[in-house]
Amino acid sequence: MAVVERKRIVNEQSYSYGATKSSIRELAAYAAARKAEIGPEKVFDFSLGNPSIPAPDEVREAIERALTLPSTQLHGYTPAAGLPDVRAAIAASLNRRFGEGSATADGLYLSCGAAACLSICLHALLNPGDEVIVIAPYFPEYRVWIETAGAVCVEVPANERTFEPDVDAVAAAITGRTRALIVNSPNNPTGAVYSADTLARLAAVIEPCGIVLIADEPYRELAYGAEVPWIPALYARTLVCYSYSKSLSLPGERIGWVLVPPAFPESARMVSALAGAGRKLGFVCAPALFQRVVAECLDVPANVAAYEENLKALTAILDENGFTYIMPRGAFYLWIRTLEPDADAFSKRARALELMLVASDSFGVPGWVRAGTCVSRDTIDRSAPAWAALAQSYR
Amino acid sequence: MAVVERKRIVNEQSYSYGATKSSIRELAAYAAARKAEIGPEKVFDFSLGNPSIPAPDEVREAIERALTLPSTQLHGYTPAAGLPDVRAAIAASLNRRFGEGSATADGLYLSCGAAACLSICLHALLNPGDEVIVIAPYFPEYRVWIETAGAVCVEVPANERTFEPDVDAVAAAITGRTRALIVNSPNNPTGAVYSADTLARLAAVIEPCGIVLIADEPYRELAYGAEVPWIPALYARTLVCYSYSKSLSLPGERIGWVLVPPAFPESARMVSALAGAGRKLGFVCAPALFQRVVAECLDVPANVAAYEENLKALTAILDENGFTYIMPRGAFYLWIRTLEPDADAFSKRARALELMLVASDSFGVPGWVRAGTCVSRDTIDRSAPAWAALAQSYR
Repeated sequence: MAVVERKRIVNEQSYSYGATKSSIRELAAYAAARKAEIGPEKVFDFSLGNPSIPAPDEVREAIERALTLPSTQLHGYTPAAGLPDVRAAIAASLNRRFGEGSATADGLYLSCGAAACLSICLHALLNPGDEVIVIAPYFPEYRVWIETAGAVCVEVPANERTFEPDVDAVAAAITGRTRALIVNSPNNPTGAVYSADTLARLAAVIEPCGIVLIADEPYRELAYGAEVPWIPALYARTLVCYSYSKSLSLPGERIGWVLVPPAFPESARMVSALAGAGRKLGFVCAPALFQRVVAECLDVPANVAAYEENLKALTAILDENGFTYIMPRGAFYLWIRTLEPDADAFSKRARALELMLVASDSFGVPGWVRAGTCVSRDTIDRSAPAWAALAQSYR
Repeated sequence: MAVVERKRIVNEQSYSYGATKSSIRELAAYAAARKAEIGPEKVFDFSLGNPSIPAPDEVREAIERALTLPSTQLHGYTPAAGLPDVRAAIAASLNRRFGEGSATADGLYLSCGAAACLSICLHALLNPGDEVIVIAPYFPEYRVWIETAGAVCVEVPANERTFEPDVDAVAAAITGRTRALIVNSPNNPTGAVYSADTLARLAAVIEPCGIVLIADEPYRELAYGAEVPWIPALYARTLVCYSYSKSLSLPGERIGWVLVPPAFPESARMVSALAGAGRKLGFVCAPALFQRVVAECLDVPANVAAYEENLKALTAILDENGFTYIMPRGAFYLWIRTLEPDADAFSKRARALELMLVASDSFGVPGWVRAGTCVSRDTIDRSAPAWAALAQSYR
């Protein structure tokens, strides 16, 4: 009997995470199937955060330059933290942008995109039973990674109006087990960019408790005129997670880094814990070719203007049809009020009109949907009648 | 006081894995420092498994062809399991080589090299307290990944003469908690290639207990005339982990796969558990560009001849100096008897002669060292006097 049981059992948590998928990925899969069925031009797929802007030409040029290196040097194992010259170049760039002393090569740990970086940070920090605060709405995978590291995900609703962190609510949620706070600015899904004032007040609340602030910053370069504060300058106990997925349009290549700022207490100890966490999870090194590529594209600006134009086009359609939404200051999503309390029902009604909008429930709040503006301009323009029909259906 | 403690504490296991490093990586770091100090030509670095043979030209050609694709298609997110056409191509290649019905696209899960694949398999299968059998000597990271998944690593010594698994010893080590067995053939570090007979006897022992065989096969293409049996044909409950690191000399690019063979019991459930484990750990998808590259290089033969020549050159030196070693039938290492019982002391004495040999203790057995034959021919030729001096020092 014991034998029969063992034959059937996989790790149930792994099975369930694999069988259910994230609701974002699930909607994207539905959209892909629909496109195959009725033609891609008839489906208005706002589900994913897959950049619609091509990688800059500098990426291709850097790949071609890298191909002139000897193959064993180019494709060989790199140190677990990344190539020393690549880390030095990234540190130098951060110091130019955010002031001398912001970063060192030794404080950088390269890995497979921001997802890997966050997972590694959490495994480097957490012990079973620890608590991690997230600001709702939040990227749903945070909960998966926090729970996988054996900790508890504690949701704290954002300020209802600004979608910045509600500092008093964060203070009220802190317990003796609170170990970390994840902050994502520019924010997915709301587009909020947290002000220096908010971040300073947040720092004042978490500092006495020794809480680590994990800054998840894949959208740092995508801000529409707003200043994105450099958080380690406001709070030393910050780990910055960065990815080139959005700024260089390389999400499939899985390349990003964690920074332990020089001012982080016992920073060398933290760096070792990151290396150990990466090793534990099976991340041997970040992809070697793309380590070199991003090092040569550090000063290439993200194509913010293209996303800003998309935003204008989509908000014009929403305005015409009486939708309310949060005007994003960064990232490439629109956070739109649903026309009924049940976001999931609203998302399903939109889906019947071939409009793919992610219900807010999976982000930890009711009553909203997320529409990615990282789509082709053509998709936005063609979607206008569907938005009109959606609004009409609620009148 | 609680606050002060929390300020100091990172996850101790992560810290310790990061602070200690694997002994292989540690020796490689020492070798790199020595090369910088006295010149690379004076250091005989046999520490790492970093291929010395360039990637075949087909890799560069495939990269260049991929660069003609639209950037958002080339560098965008792929499905978590990998691009469907890439998985179909890999499955077709496996079916050509090992017989129809060996693989399906749906049974393949691409990830960041064999390390990620093994870590994902273990997290997909194991529950806390489960036991996983490894055949000693074994790749030391197996223990790290098994323990990270909450399970217990049970070492079973290989047959002393052949270094194939000792089937009776495996049978004796099975308990009610044994969940998996990791098999690595061609073997790192011994070069043993497990025979179909041994594998069939092993299967007969683990089958009644429902134990999953995890076949770690990065060296499959590197066999010196020996046949490498296709294990799923002998045992259905097998997960195959493969990497292109060695066969295509791409270890830094982190690309490989797990196969759930069609005959695996409840295979769809296992596939979901793999997807969930990958998601839990932060592996979003395998690097997109190299997914396409390997799909175009499936029929490119590995350069076995070059490693075989290295092997001949190094064994000639060892023979001249009276060393005993296991003649490898695959992989690219030589497993050499130490001239004193303490392998670590022997490795240190070799190191003083600039010969970098990994002591067997970290592989779970005493009395041997591992020398990688994946080095330049020049390194082998220049190392002859150091081997002579090492042997002489024990006379």
